Amino acid sequence: MLTGDFTQSNNIPEKFDYSNEPVRSSELIVQKDQPFNAEPALNSLIQHYVTPTDVFFKRNHGPIPLIEHDSYTFQVDGIVEKPLIVDLNTLKQNFKKHEVVAVIQCAGNRRDGLAKVKKVKGVIWGPGTVGNAVWAGARLCDVLRAAGVSMDLSNPIVSQLHVSFEAYGKSEEDTCYGSSIPLEMAINPANDVLLAYEMNGCELTRDHGFPCRVIVPGVIGARSVKYLRKITIQNEESQSFYQKMDYKVLPPYVNEDNANEWWDKMAALQEMIIQSVICEPCSGQVLPPGPVTIRGYALCGGGKGVDRVDVSVDNGQTWLETTKYQAATRSKYYAWCLWTTTVDSIPDGGKIICRAFDTCGNTQPEFPIWNFRGVMNNSWFVVENLRQQSNTKL
Amino acid sequence: MLTGDFTQSNNIPEKFDYSNEPVRSSELIVQKDQPFNAEPALNSLIQHYVTPTDVFFKRNHGPIPLIEHDSYTFQVDGIVEKPLIVDLNTLKQNFKKHEVVAVIQCAGNRRDGLAKVKKVKGVIWGPGTVGNAVWAGARLCDVLRAAGVSMDLSNPIVSQLHVSFEAYGKSEEDTCYGSSIPLEMAINPANDVLLAYEMNGCELTRDHGFPCRVIVPGVIGARSVKYLRKITIQNEESQSFYQKMDYKVLPPYVNEDNANEWWDKMAALQEMIIQSVICEPCSGQVLPPGPVTIRGYALCGGGKGVDRVDVSVDNGQTWLETTKYQAATRSKYYAWCLWTTTVDSIPDGGKIICRAFDTCGNTQPEFPIWNFRGVMNNSWFVVENLRQQSNTKL
Repeated sequence: MLTGDFTQSNNIPEKFDYSNEPVRSSELIVQKDQPFNAEPALNSLIQHYVTPTDVFFKRNHGPIPLIEHDSYTFQVDGIVEKPLIVDLNTLKQNFKKHEVVAVIQCAGNRRDGLAKVKKVKGVIWGPGTVGNAVWAGARLCDVLRAAGVSMDLSNPIVSQLHVSFEAYGKSEEDTCYGSSIPLEMAINPANDVLLAYEMNGCELTRDHGFPCRVIVPGVIGARSVKYLRKITIQNEESQSFYQKMDYKVLPPYVNEDNANEWWDKMAALQEMIIQSVICEPCSGQVLPPGPVTIRGYALCGGGKGVDRVDVSVDNGQTWLETTKYQAATRSKYYAWCLWTTTVDSIPDGGKIICRAFDTCGNTQPEFPIWNFRGVMNNSWFVVENLRQQSNTKL
Repeated sequence: MLTGDFTQSNNIPEKFDYSNEPVRSSELIVQKDQPFNAEPALNSLIQHYVTPTDVFFKRNHGPIPLIEHDSYTFQVDGIVEKPLIVDLNTLKQNFKKHEVVAVIQCAGNRRDGLAKVKKVKGVIWGPGTVGNAVWAGARLCDVLRAAGVSMDLSNPIVSQLHVSFEAYGKSEEDTCYGSSIPLEMAINPANDVLLAYEMNGCELTRDHGFPCRVIVPGVIGARSVKYLRKITIQNEESQSFYQKMDYKVLPPYVNEDNANEWWDKMAALQEMIIQSVICEPCSGQVLPPGPVTIRGYALCGGGKGVDRVDVSVDNGQTWLETTKYQAATRSKYYAWCLWTTTVDSIPDGGKIICRAFDTCGNTQPEFPIWNFRGVMNNSWFVVENLRQQSNTKL
């Protein structure tokens, strides 16, 4: 076994130089300009089962690195028998191409709901930091096998290893963006962890990780590292800021003053949790008379499925059935669920609530549970202040 | 590949003959006499981190089968290269013995909380249908390998197979007790799925599956089939009543009248969900003056850990930190978590609430969510009507 040694020696644009950003759709809601962070409006988000690339949320921790297709490589090192340096042509030609439809959600999706409770740290995302795309590339497990990584999970040492990812480019909180997942998750081919070079049938765009990114289906977006520079097999989780001091649910009695005592006590988030959002109608909308169609998305993590989505128009007293569609990946569910139902009318008070259950029986809490970093908000989604026009002709 | 064919031909005691039941501890709370279903009182449940066998809840769907150690065998068939008939000596001698500390919880634990909302079908369990034991036996994956079961999860057919278990003995709702888990879960050695013949360092007792049972750590107790008679590798889930028409979360608008339309629409439960219970003090207790120690258990499924347990003595306005212990199995958590905290006093109103979070950010719903079979109740646990004696000497 070799333990890799790494010195960052790549051509990286000057820190916080935002002069080389890509052109983006003007229809996105920009939550932060530099680094660029933007999400789509909810009604445009669910127009398609596969989210168009320009509608897909953009989440960045620094400038988008300028990388040439032909000179791009990533390396594989750490506890491997054969360290590798892989270029894009090798990745495409030597490893079978796999495709997976997977929903990617930022752990900070719906942070706005927690910010209303108390001040949180982070981009104040609405409920649009989510998208469902077709990703294609090599399976990470195939590349790891080529590097001679042990796949023997009956070996207790192997079963506790981690796959750490580092990105090209500068980031705001650390020398580069980094994250890790357990090796056990990476080496199971049924988990479809990809080194993706295509999104929705085209080469990755710069905003989505060109030329190559990790896609970890069923896991918070933070682990699907873009602009992949390095994969390290190691005994511990990534020591990156983004694994150790971010993307963790801190207790409600922890705030800016004492957070540093708490990071090491709490787990780094991985699997997504059950989530559902009403995308149509939206709060404050004035609706025509007659039946009202309610539509939204739902998702969960770890390959679990969305078992059902309930809707209530009487403040949670009774719940209505919805019709849903969620594509399966063999026996797993990595894609999102779109759902709809129609009610005869919206009663006085004009409020619609949704909640979902995953196939294990997990559900969403009724009220937002504040945490300092504002992550994993999955409380019941509420649309309110609705009004229906009268049916009588004036 | 061979597809097994099965005819039940074992010596099974006459249906519903309860004349050969084992002797049980008189301290258990008996919820049903025939079949025998009993749970311990909460304060005795958490006296030990490893639950003593006689304190451990007993859950049965029929009489306990009378099985001889020396004549016992189980068979392995279905989509296997080499069907097997395995006796106990072969299991013990030919396969490495593994040990795992795992909490087993019935999916109906805390059904009483849902029965208070509306009538449910099932044994009205309190919160004691749970126990944490040391299980030892062969790994199921080792036995499956000996039967020539494919372990290649990159094969889409293999990744969608199921491991079906059938038990010796009669059961109330079907010809025998049966259940299944996905093959993917079974063949990962890190999941520690066992064919166990020991509990807490001794031969299994009859109530707990003598001479051999399945133990599926992190999964609802229903899948840990006792009195193992047959393992079948097959393309579909178990068709047993206990997989298809029980142990599912039905929507709140489904009851006895329309349940039959719903069974096939809902997922068979597998991974346990985040749970926490206050074991001391108990509702209605009169406490001495001074500080009050609060103790309980928490658990979750799929190898996830309990990230934290919160306690509130002001009706959920604020939450207090607790001290917890949960043994790790390498990087997984299959054992339960015991936790404690001390408060200066219990305020007027005398109510204590607990809630827990798993390492993914899943938490418990605030209120019970009724479902017809009364499964997976994990709402906030509330102890109420507490009173503290006055400190003044009379």
